[in-house]
Amino acid sequence: MANHNRLTVDDAALAAITRTPFPQSAKVYVGGVLHPNLRVPMREVSLSTTEHADGRVTHNASMTVYDTSGPFSDPTIELDLKNGLPAVRDSWIRGRADLEQLPGLSSEYGRQRLEDPRLSKLRFRSVTNPFKAMGGKAATQLAAARAGIITPEMEYVAIRETQKRDRAEVQHAGESYGAAIPKEITPEFVRSEIALGRAIIPANVNHLELEPMIIGRNFLVKVNANLGNSAVTSSIEEEVEKMVWAIRWGADTVMDLSTGPNIHETREWILRNSPVPIGTVPIYQCLEKVNGKAEALTWELFRDTLIEQAEQGVDYFTIHAGVRLPFIPMTAKRVTGIVSRGGSIMARWCLAHHQENFLFTHFEEICEIMKAYDVSFSLGDGLRPGCIADANDEAQMAELKTLGELTQIAWKHDVQVMVEGPGHVPMQLIRENMTEQLKLCHEAPFYTLGPLTTDIAPGYDHITSGIGAALIGWFGTAMLCYVTPKEHLGLPDKDDVRVGVVTYKIAAHAADLAKGHPGAQQRDNALSRARFEFRWMDQFALSLDPEKAKEFHDETLPADGAKTAHFCSMCGPHFCSMKITGDVRAIAAGMEEKAQEFREGGAQLYAARPEGTEA
Amino acid sequence: MANHNRLTVDDAALAAITRTPFPQSAKVYVGGVLHPNLRVPMREVSLSTTEHADGRVTHNASMTVYDTSGPFSDPTIELDLKNGLPAVRDSWIRGRADLEQLPGLSSEYGRQRLEDPRLSKLRFRSVTNPFKAMGGKAATQLAAARAGIITPEMEYVAIRETQKRDRAEVQHAGESYGAAIPKEITPEFVRSEIALGRAIIPANVNHLELEPMIIGRNFLVKVNANLGNSAVTSSIEEEVEKMVWAIRWGADTVMDLSTGPNIHETREWILRNSPVPIGTVPIYQCLEKVNGKAEALTWELFRDTLIEQAEQGVDYFTIHAGVRLPFIPMTAKRVTGIVSRGGSIMARWCLAHHQENFLFTHFEEICEIMKAYDVSFSLGDGLRPGCIADANDEAQMAELKTLGELTQIAWKHDVQVMVEGPGHVPMQLIRENMTEQLKLCHEAPFYTLGPLTTDIAPGYDHITSGIGAALIGWFGTAMLCYVTPKEHLGLPDKDDVRVGVVTYKIAAHAADLAKGHPGAQQRDNALSRARFEFRWMDQFALSLDPEKAKEFHDETLPADGAKTAHFCSMCGPHFCSMKITGDVRAIAAGMEEKAQEFREGGAQLYAARPEGTEA
Repeated sequence: MANHNRLTVDDAALAAITRTPFPQSAKVYVGGVLHPNLRVPMREVSLSTTEHADGRVTHNASMTVYDTSGPFSDPTIELDLKNGLPAVRDSWIRGRADLEQLPGLSSEYGRQRLEDPRLSKLRFRSVTNPFKAMGGKAATQLAAARAGIITPEMEYVAIRETQKRDRAEVQHAGESYGAAIPKEITPEFVRSEIALGRAIIPANVNHLELEPMIIGRNFLVKVNANLGNSAVTSSIEEEVEKMVWAIRWGADTVMDLSTGPNIHETREWILRNSPVPIGTVPIYQCLEKVNGKAEALTWELFRDTLIEQAEQGVDYFTIHAGVRLPFIPMTAKRVTGIVSRGGSIMARWCLAHHQENFLFTHFEEICEIMKAYDVSFSLGDGLRPGCIADANDEAQMAELKTLGELTQIAWKHDVQVMVEGPGHVPMQLIRENMTEQLKLCHEAPFYTLGPLTTDIAPGYDHITSGIGAALIGWFGTAMLCYVTPKEHLGLPDKDDVRVGVVTYKIAAHAADLAKGHPGAQQRDNALSRARFEFRWMDQFALSLDPEKAKEFHDETLPADGAKTAHFCSMCGPHFCSMKITGDVRAIAAGMEEKAQEFREGGAQLYAARPEGTEA
Repeated sequence: MANHNRLTVDDAALAAITRTPFPQSAKVYVGGVLHPNLRVPMREVSLSTTEHADGRVTHNASMTVYDTSGPFSDPTIELDLKNGLPAVRDSWIRGRADLEQLPGLSSEYGRQRLEDPRLSKLRFRSVTNPFKAMGGKAATQLAAARAGIITPEMEYVAIRETQKRDRAEVQHAGESYGAAIPKEITPEFVRSEIALGRAIIPANVNHLELEPMIIGRNFLVKVNANLGNSAVTSSIEEEVEKMVWAIRWGADTVMDLSTGPNIHETREWILRNSPVPIGTVPIYQCLEKVNGKAEALTWELFRDTLIEQAEQGVDYFTIHAGVRLPFIPMTAKRVTGIVSRGGSIMARWCLAHHQENFLFTHFEEICEIMKAYDVSFSLGDGLRPGCIADANDEAQMAELKTLGELTQIAWKHDVQVMVEGPGHVPMQLIRENMTEQLKLCHEAPFYTLGPLTTDIAPGYDHITSGIGAALIGWFGTAMLCYVTPKEHLGLPDKDDVRVGVVTYKIAAHAADLAKGHPGAQQRDNALSRARFEFRWMDQFALSLDPEKAKEFHDETLPADGAKTAHFCSMCGPHFCSMKITGDVRAIAAGMEEKAQEFREGGAQLYAARPEGTEA
């Protein structure tokens, strides 16, 4: 609140944003074949050696893991957040024949903000003139894919999705519910999935700092984290810090849902420092522009806001075009009515004017704007259920059907589309959401909030929703929007963001395992091996939150020696099942010096005893 | 650690154990019909009134919720933990013709401890002479059920499972996966389920303080919390406090897994103060008695330990009789071998002696002991998988088949049985665990640890496992053993116990909703209505953790006024979807004074506009 009207950015706070690399980890970059200048980042985790009881030592190969944290976790890159991140896509964009760089901003509001001298200390240092498609063309990945072109972004995500994989690793077969994940993700497969509308690469031509990623059910399940200031809290440096924090823990995209002051400048700072796609809900900023009066919203204002944000580099827009006038009465008997902010804003506008939603009536014009910058649609579910009682009701399904119709209109314009989903849904109704979405929305990627599987645990809604997220991810949802412990109660702080993101990384990974995503189980196997062999530091380094794991271990056994001890605080040194199993295995391997610890007779046991032979 | 050798109990610490009642809640007791002297406890949550925009006020009926917290949350009961809880089952037990009260303890070890003067300050104040079945009979609920008798315990749980229910409440249909939950839980239904072996009431005749509960897949899904000291930590008063703490948050049973000093006395204190069933793993105490040397274990020692614990009142024993000698080699190629403590102890014994597991060879004698006190079996899964890679493997399934055979032997002796399950299992393999267990174990209740759906998140394993627990609970698991955030890393503290229990209450409730358990959705509906109407205090009171919910809300809006405000910190006063929906609904109800806030035209909208009519 203190920063409310402060029109500066705190340099010291920016400089203090964490850049600590992960333990035992180095950033490695993999080059492309079709596009040799690609540098696809991965985190390579080095592992220690296994020391066997007989003195032998086994080398454990390092493993690479998908890395969303960007240059912040690479200590070899010098960063000054006032200048933004290196523009990794600069040469790709400048090399394109379908784009032109404009002489200035097209948005009237954007120009006003740029020229306002009162904002000079708040504004990001340099604002680049925007790129835009020439001659009304579609500058989108979808247009390229349909034309048979494999863009640098496509090859980039193909490399990123694959990681270095140990071919010898086995894993359980998945149950895919119609997803068809190939053994190898090739650039051509990426192109084909995009051309079919089954996947998107949200990559605005004005987001040059972006490390491209893909959203589709035949790829790894992704996680979005929301942040943003509100009327009662936060500053620009805090929002940038939250973004860096969210991607550190694994957020694949970030939505800036700011509703407070200086939305325009906050977004510029975030975009220039974000290696992940940034999504927004443009109607939020529009509402700020009309001082919160929904009935004062106009198409012209919305249009200028879309252009303003598109030229800044926003990668996807949530647009609540499916909240149609005739659907609104369907919500009157609900237990919790309309719970989406965007949905309720549009419902209020529709009722005040007794007119159809202007986002619906102007949908083709919206497509024209978005295709010029390659902004992807995230078709908003403004009528999603806000409680278990309202799940899968008439209003929700009517809107979903409309979103399917809008998907086809967007595709006609070569605009990439994903579709948003609920919300609050009990477990037995989750599957229906996925099957209906695939059917009604022609396999466009689904992007769901949770869903929360019960309403009775405020304070723990990352968990009520993590359950639903894992399930719907398994069934085919391409991206999961996180829910933090503060849901329904307040705005998340840094710790809530971390817990929310890690919870959703768990849900996404559990879904990848369940779908049988090739190589997904490799990390589980490596961590479990480390656990079994008491390689504590390896176990921490391979985990989703190495710091938390180490901190918990330290609570009971803080000494450094405990990190190499062959026991832990749970059972103590003389009572460890893992240790006993190690002994059991030693016998199996015929190691006599270990076997002598046991009484006679046991030493032969593991020697190829046929199954079913009882002693 | 400080208390390690202290042979006293800290009175002040006992007196400080929390007895704070839940907000807006009163303990109510419901009487029986067949057994009029029953007093079945429930928590009645009072709700505030709804104040409508037009000045009307609606009364909201109170609702009762299942209450595991015992007399501790009833301020009208005077408690002194040194004397234990009121013996609610005293008259039931003393009234039974099949029981006799012994003149003293039957266990040699029990007598030693009772007579050891050094333990006088540590020992619970008075040790009652134990009850036991006369003449080698089975004093079990199963024997009674098979004889057509409806015991007080059976009527008690029938009342407890039902709660006061608003018949007008609607809820979604469930998907039951073969469970058959009746609309009304009658005492006869309880009897029948027990007679069929599909449910158990763990209720040792020597646990007089017990408020009976039932475990079976046609009843509410239950949650177990583990506690217990270890070689490196904790005192008696801390363990009692953890038990009271665990049941406060909803644990239906508690397992005392102590492995440190004074196990016998610790257990006595816990039992005398526990309104929930207490389970143990007797082999743990046996191992303490032989100073941790598994190969020194004997049947005679185990037998005396069973009797010692049965006469104290332990309600169920985990017995790892399925870890058979021929199965042990099947674990040699696993990634994490044997991870169950009981399993690894027995494996070590088997290997050391090259003999079949003595728990298996003496199984009928074990049944003879357990039936005399009505101790239920929890057949241990000593070969459960400890990582994703080992899930559903040969060793696990071989043991499960054996547990099915042992179930039938126990049933022959009229001993109640539940069967333990994994462990670490990816989502797509969870269903198989449940279907195989039902088939191989003849529908005996399943009691699973998690399962954890991925290995890569130490520090968050309450969540990795909460996902699996919700799923397997939906599929038919009757009781879920909680996992805390400290799993794999350290011993849980009080906060970990709370988070673990609440996470598992979420999983259990999500499963109840998914199965369509009658009335389960009522609490979700009531909370969501409170949320929608900004009855913040009602929302907190109805939630699984009212204190946490209020604390989170207070972080951003601490003022008392904010608890009645029609907005929250998430969106601020001018930007609330719930508020806007309220306005939308006001229009629908034709309230002109609200409608005037909107422009002309909107006011008629909710007036029976046919679906599909577009404006």
